[in-house]
Amino acid sequence: MKKYGFGVDVGGTSIKLGFFETGGKLLEKWEIPTRTEDKGAKVLPDVAAAIRNKYKEKGLHKEDIAGIGVGVPGPVDAHGTVRGCVNLGWKTVDVVAVISALTGLPTAAANDANLAALGEMWQGGGIGYENVLMVTLGTGVGGGVIMDGKIAAGAHGAGGEIGHMTVNFTETEPCNCGRRGCLEQYASATGIVRLAKRHGMELPNMSAKSVFDAARAGDQKALEVTDTMSRILGRALANVAVVCDPEVIVIGGGVSKAGTFLMDAVQGYFEKNAFSACRGTRFALAKLGNEAGIYGGMKLILQEID
Amino acid sequence: MKKYGFGVDVGGTSIKLGFFETGGKLLEKWEIPTRTEDKGAKVLPDVAAAIRNKYKEKGLHKEDIAGIGVGVPGPVDAHGTVRGCVNLGWKTVDVVAVISALTGLPTAAANDANLAALGEMWQGGGIGYENVLMVTLGTGVGGGVIMDGKIAAGAHGAGGEIGHMTVNFTETEPCNCGRRGCLEQYASATGIVRLAKRHGMELPNMSAKSVFDAARAGDQKALEVTDTMSRILGRALANVAVVCDPEVIVIGGGVSKAGTFLMDAVQGYFEKNAFSACRGTRFALAKLGNEAGIYGGMKLILQEID
Repeated sequence: MKKYGFGVDVGGTSIKLGFFETGGKLLEKWEIPTRTEDKGAKVLPDVAAAIRNKYKEKGLHKEDIAGIGVGVPGPVDAHGTVRGCVNLGWKTVDVVAVISALTGLPTAAANDANLAALGEMWQGGGIGYENVLMVTLGTGVGGGVIMDGKIAAGAHGAGGEIGHMTVNFTETEPCNCGRRGCLEQYASATGIVRLAKRHGMELPNMSAKSVFDAARAGDQKALEVTDTMSRILGRALANVAVVCDPEVIVIGGGVSKAGTFLMDAVQGYFEKNAFSACRGTRFALAKLGNEAGIYGGMKLILQEID
Repeated sequence: MKKYGFGVDVGGTSIKLGFFETGGKLLEKWEIPTRTEDKGAKVLPDVAAAIRNKYKEKGLHKEDIAGIGVGVPGPVDAHGTVRGCVNLGWKTVDVVAVISALTGLPTAAANDANLAALGEMWQGGGIGYENVLMVTLGTGVGGGVIMDGKIAAGAHGAGGEIGHMTVNFTETEPCNCGRRGCLEQYASATGIVRLAKRHGMELPNMSAKSVFDAARAGDQKALEVTDTMSRILGRALANVAVVCDPEVIVIGGGVSKAGTFLMDAVQGYFEKNAFSACRGTRFALAKLGNEAGIYGGMKLILQEID
């Protein structure tokens, strides 16, 4: 096994890169801006140049590098082809073919949420497990399913898109996806603020954090919001569990920073609603923060060249 | 590749066996009774004897047989160990170790619903696809998920147990599993009869079939029942699709014999409720009937020895 490799996480505004030892140690991380002009045509050449420059800077050669794993914010098929990334201006882009042509290195690609799940399994909150459900509670709700140690991307790259499970068929406000009643409308940071307003809460610069702070301080309305959010999320996770049956559910994203009081409530509703075989599913907090994607990239290419 | 193999489907009252060409042709099928006395200790020796007798009867030798794939009505872990089969009187039983010791042949085991899904992928309604969700609408609602051509059994063997997704949190009657509001309470044959009674239907010897027959004849209450069942099932499948993202949903079991008028209604509700990426998911009727399990057994052992 070669000693080094790269994990890359392409986002809408910046690209995170990680230079790793293939054993799992992150040696160096850095970011470059995402140049979305020209329909995102510069994104992958920028990634390739950054990687080449980095290993040369280290006095290394192509022969020292195991490969590159790249996460992108859109659906990726089993061959590493992206079918549209709105944030990058991409239509169909063969990420694997382009990066490997520009670098001469083995390359793999996956959806960024799935890659974060793989990273958390490898070196984060899901370490020691091979069946992991990762849930990211951020501006939206992202998800990734790992089964038997591998990303379960599904037929259209929509595997693990649990933010768009419908949890309320009578919701009147639309989700960003155009449908109504998605989990994301209740369990994301923006969803929690929306719930709080519905419960008549009025806080200056209201955020998920300020709602949780108020709940911790005993505010009745904030406690109701927290309970509603936990119930909806715990029940949704129980329904996810009978489909993919994880050993551990790893929860990350900004909302998870509310800490154990929220996570305990979610787990409580999960256990109350889970099918008997799944009741023992563990819960863990994510550990890698926004480095999960680059860790996942490194692990993905190791799996592909194995 | 050896020319022959066996698929076995162990049920609570009988054991189905299939003698196959490894290319997929079912040469002969037969049944033996399931002897559940002595905590089911005779079940696996009976299977082993039946297989030995069959290949000897054909003038074949152990060396001509690729192996045996066995389905059991309970959760099976990744190593082929069963963690309890109520119907057979089993607690923990290592099916693979026992059958391979008794026959000297490569053996694999899986949950029967998952094996049926694999069988339908190989030679049935899911032929040509590698990401398949199989739903069996019988006395209960069974399910199996195939991702990238392999059974997605999950951590506790509960993968694909979609009959126990909660679809109604205000249900007052209990499901067989002890919880309330499971999909099985609405979309199984017994669930449909329950719904019909709730809608005030009165038919002699009411069954799912008689309800659907009444709906086809234009009975208003029966049409309402069919619509309710289709809506609940279509919505549930849309929520399953954002977790495992199948290319095709194969529907089998006695209820699926209601035919296209029911399946079209289910698919209509699915498409209305599915996340955009999953809206193109195909629907197909199962083709193998109660032979799906033995086909799946044959395919499973071929995958394991590959």
